[in-house]
Order: sequence, then structure tokens, then C-alpha cells
Amino acid sequence: IPKPSHKVRRDVQRFDLNKVTITNDPVGNKEKILILTPMARFYQEYWDNLVKLNYPHELITLGFILPKSKEGNAATTALQAQITKTQKGARPFRKVIIERQDFEPPLASQDESERHKLANQKDRRAAMSKARNSLLFTTLGPDTSWVLWLDADIVETPPTLIQDLASHNKDLIVPNCFQRYTDDSGKLAERAYDFNSWQDSNTAQELAATMGPEDLLLEGYEELPTYRTLMAYMELEDMNDVRAEVPLDGVGGTALLVKADVHRDGAMFPPFPFYHLIETEGFAKMARRLGWHATGLPNYKVYHYNE
Amino acid sequence: IPKPSHKVRRDVQRFDLNKVTITNDPVGNKEKILILTPMARFYQEYWDNLVKLNYPHELITLGFILPKSKEGNAATTALQAQITKTQKGARPFRKVIIERQDFEPPLASQDESERHKLANQKDRRAAMSKARNSLLFTTLGPDTSWVLWLDADIVETPPTLIQDLASHNKDLIVPNCFQRYTDDSGKLAERAYDFNSWQDSNTAQELAATMGPEDLLLEGYEELPTYRTLMAYMELEDMNDVRAEVPLDGVGGTALLVKADVHRDGAMFPPFPFYHLIETEGFAKMARRLGWHATGLPNYKVYHYNE
Ligand SMILES: Nc1nc2c(ncn2[C@@H]2O[C@H](COP(=O)(O)OP(=O)(O)O)[C@@H](O)[C@H]2O)c(=O)[nH]1
Ligand SMILES: Nc1nc2c(ncn2[C@@H]2O[C@H](COP(=O)(O)OP(=O)(O)O)[C@@H](O)[C@H]2O)c(=O)[nH]1
Ligand SMILES: [Mn+2]
Ligand SMILES: [Mn+2]
Repeated sequence: IPKPSHKVRRDVQRFDLNKVTITNDPVGNKEKILILTPMARFYQEYWDNLVKLNYPHELITLGFILPKSKEGNAATTALQAQITKTQKGARPFRKVIIERQDFEPPLASQDESERHKLANQKDRRAAMSKARNSLLFTTLGPDTSWVLWLDADIVETPPTLIQDLASHNKDLIVPNCFQRYTDDSGKLAERAYDFNSWQDSNTAQELAATMGPEDLLLEGYEELPTYRTLMAYMELEDMNDVRAEVPLDGVGGTALLVKADVHRDGAMFPPFPFYHLIETEGFAKMARRLGWHATGLPNYKVYHYNE
Repeated sequence: IPKPSHKVRRDVQRFDLNKVTITNDPVGNKEKILILTPMARFYQEYWDNLVKLNYPHELITLGFILPKSKEGNAATTALQAQITKTQKGARPFRKVIIERQDFEPPLASQDESERHKLANQKDRRAAMSKARNSLLFTTLGPDTSWVLWLDADIVETPPTLIQDLASHNKDLIVPNCFQRYTDDSGKLAERAYDFNSWQDSNTAQELAATMGPEDLLLEGYEELPTYRTLMAYMELEDMNDVRAEVPLDGVGGTALLVKADVHRDGAMFPPFPFYHLIETEGFAKMARRLGWHATGLPNYKVYHYNE
């Protein structure tokens, strides 16, 4: 029997980008999600939280990029062990891609105090941008509907994270990233962690106008008071309305859901000052230049590891 | 017999970006090439020339993006027929990906006179940038060494195009794009076609300094004399030395070989004015911001279709 001439060849793939839906009901529409994580250290709590996400795992592809450092090697080994276990289990992910970076991280130390020094920010965030771009450009598919950026030290989110964020049907949407800690009296408490999600201010705009083209307007540094409105500190009328939305100009990337079309149009993480912004904050600006809008959810919280 | 625990799972892929070589001997090192073509019209001469490229086809992935217009539908049908024939033949390509755009092209007419009007350039080249980005972001792999951008109306190149360009081992390298025509006396002649490959001038820089942030400094328009040095018109001492190199600040994309790391770092085709540049010229500038350099080959020619 001769093969039918219309047989689909495995080496030829056709995609109609029109037919890749991006809706507020991604489960109902079987929309594919790509979860991207740059990872310098492996935390078991991150993995356990990831595995508990109740979006259908068969629709989720995971992408990781890890540095070629001693710490990165250790993280890769630990990550690999968990992946093997999960993929053999009852709810394997659709696909997992692990990449090792081909450049060195600019800082020898990943400790929080060192990472957060203003003088270290430009190089560090440029390197982070390149790691994010490398991961994004090599894992995004024509059939991806959403990209969830999730840092490797996000250790607690609602299991419905993806559905909750997607239900707002926004171009870019970012929850509020907090951190749990024990206060002086020994009581469990929480505090804001990520200050990269903000609404712009006139002061910041005026400061930017006086800056040289290579200068960055970073957030969260006393040396550079911007008077931007930070999502971390927003006081809303109803602090219990987890669906409350605010428009944003800058976003953090600890947890960030993006419509894949935003990236496909070309929005990436600028490793150079872009309107005096870099990395995830520069990404929000670039998305804006492409006609897309960022939204924040001040009352919807995710939690960062506490070193 | 229990499965060996080290068995490689098809759903888990590991890539060490360090081990993806990008050298001046891509055939010897079995380097994978991605050829990307945005296509509004199908020309048989383009396909015939592509198939004649003697870089090992098993190392070549082809990616196409076509608009969702009547013309785009016709081009898709014609392209598909040729792909089927070639992939059944003796020298199939490694993989072929065909994408249909999910936005409309901004111009109803693809005729050269209409396309090249200055007033139409911003919208048209923004749309082209998005088409290129969409194709790039969804086809680039972790194991791609080189990306060859090749327009659908490039109808004649040496069959050794890829090896020739890669042998220079440059970050971005662009041949000179000419066009054959019949002159008034009926003789075959050739003339420069692509004016997007140039070296910057002080005049252009001064012009840029007076422009608004949304203004574009386009090349090849009388209304905007830039006095840039165009590769199209360069007079070299030895006009026969096909290996002669010149540094460039702007590049055209009719034929353009790029190290995959340039794209993986984040270099894309800006659909908005980036230093008053857009699309392929903006791409060269963005690559430069990322530390990569563009090179032109004035005496190495490829030929554009003559409508
Ligand atoms: N691939 C890669 N990931 C990194 C590197 N540095 C940090 N990361 C990861 O990138 C994310 C953000 O970095 P982190 O240091 O936590 O930023 P911070 O919480 O804002 O101080 C985390 O998931 C880190 O594990 C690096 O050099 N390479
Ligand atoms: N996907 C897509 N490709 C296009 C579109 N317009 C032009 N092209 C293709 O993009 C390349 C450059 O466009 P072309 O019109 O030839 O540019 P020119 O030669 O500089 O005038 C060619 O390969 C075209 O076939 C479009 O709207 N969508
Ligand atoms: Mn962190
Ligand atoms: Mn053309």
C-alpha cells in the first residue's frame, strides 16, 4: 500500500499563531504554559511548591538556566534528582529543559547583602537579563500561550497561582512578593520583599531627565529617592480583595505571568539601560513600547525564601 | 528487568550552552544552522537557490513566517509543495517550521513602489520587526550555533554561502545585496539593492541629536540625507577580493549571518525607534549595545529578485 501523500511528516511542523488562544480560561482552552526559572541555588521548598501547582501538568513545560559555577553545579544536581522523581511519578510535566549558562556570573558571592549593593546592581542585573533572555529565546514555542517567570527562591504561592493570575486576562501580571520572618518578640510576621513593581513618579521622571544615557534609575536605594508608588507598600481600601488590580510601570520578576505574544513581539529583558531601566523593570517598559500593559495584584501574595 | 535508572528521558532535555561551538569551521564541527525567512511572496528561484546550498542539510533547520493575507495563503501553498518534495528527496533538511502570523500586515500592497515610500516605512518596518521576532523567539534552540536571515526574494547566492560567511568568524556578517536588470541597451547589468548596511556619519549623528524620540533616521531617502558610508557603493582597492571586510554600524537583513549567542543575549529587531533605528538597522545597534560587532563583505554578492 503506498503511503498517503497527505501524511504529516514529523520533520515539517505547521503553526497557525492565530489559533494559539490566550484567554482567562486557560484550563478550559488547554493553553500551554511555559514556566521559566533562572536558578543559582536549589531550594526544596521551591520545588515542593511548584509540584503542588494544580494547573494541568501535562500543559506545563519547565525551563531552567543555571550558572556554570560550583554553586550552580550543586543546584543542577539537586534539581535533576527532583525532576527525575517527579517525571517518574503520577503527574509528570509535559517537558523539562535544563540549560547551563555559557558565561560566568559577575559576582562571586550570591549572598543577599552582597547582591543588593547599589554598585553591584548594573553588572548583576545585566547578567541576569542575559540569563533570562537566553532561557526565553530558546524555550518559547509557537504554541506557548503564557510564560510564568518564577524565581528559584519563591517558596510559597497558592496552588491555583496560574489560573488565578490568568483569570485577569492581562498582558503582564504580577503578584506582591513578600517574605516571612520571625520578629524580635519571636512571632511569625511578614514583610515586603520585591520593590521592582511600581508606578512611576514625576520625581523619577525628572531625575531620569538629568541622567546620562548609561545611568540606571534603580528602585529601593536610599541614595536614589524616586518617590515612585511601590506595590509593596500600597494601602488599598479593601486589603482582603485578592482580585484588586493596579496599573504598573515597572515589574519584578520573582513571579510574573506574561502573555506569550508579548515576548513574541520582541519584549525581552534589556541587559543595557533602556529608558534608564534594566532587566524586569526594563522589560515592562519595553512591553509598554510594544503596546502592552502591566498590572499588579497588591493583595495577592507569594513568598520569597528568607536567608 | 527494571529500567536502568540513568535512562535518558525524552521529556527531560539538558543543554550545556558552553558546548555549543560557534567557529569558523561549522561543517567540521557539525554546527547547527537555523535559516529564517519572513515570506510575503513565494519565488521558485529562492527555493531552488536555498536547496542548492551545500552546507550539510541535516544540520539546517528552516523557519518561515507568512502573513495571514490572500497573498500569504498563496505563498504558503506554494512553499508547502516545495517542502514536501524536498523533504521526500535525497537531501532533506533537518526540520522545517512554517508559521502563520497572527496579525495583519500594515500595507495592503506588497508592490515595491508602495513598500519603499518613506511615509510607509515606520509601520511597515515595525510589522516586519514583529514578524522577525516572532519567528526568532519560537525557533531558536539551545543547540543552534548560527542564524542565517535570508529574505524570500534572494534568488541567487554562491552555494557555499554559509561556509563562506561563517569562515570570517564574525558576530554579525552581511554580504552585499545587488539586483540584476537589463539596461536601456538590452544588456544584462547589476545595481545595488539594499542600502541598510552602512557606516555611521557625523551628519547622521547630528541629525539624530535634533530629532524627537519617536523619529527614525532611515537610509536611502532623499528627504533625509545622512551621508552615511553605504556598503552598496563602497569602492575598495581590490574589487575582486571577496574576503575584504568592513566594519558596519547598520545592517540589512536580506542575507545576514548571526552567531546564535548574539540573539540569545537578547538582540532582537526593535519594532520601535531604538537610537532612531528600527528593524535590522536597530538590531545591529542593539547587538552593539550587547558588545557584538557587525561586519560587511562589500565584494561578496547575493542577488535580490527584480520585480
Ligand atoms: N542562571 C542564573 N540564575 C541566577 C543568577 N543569579 C541569580 N539567579 C537566580 O535568579 C533569580 C533572582 O536572583 P536573586 O539573587 O534571588 O535576586 P533577588 O532576590 O532580587 O536578590 C533567582 O531565581 C536566582 O536563583 C545567575 O548568575 N545565573
Ligand atoms: N511574514 C511576513 N513577511 C513579510 C511581510 N512583508 C514582507 N515580508 C517578507 O520580508 C522580507 C523583506 O520584505 P521586502 O518587502 O522584500 O523588503 P524590501 O526588499 O526591503 O523592500 C521578504 O522576504 C518578504 O517576503 C509581512 O507582512 N509578513
Ligand atoms: Mn530572590
Ligand atoms: Mn525584498
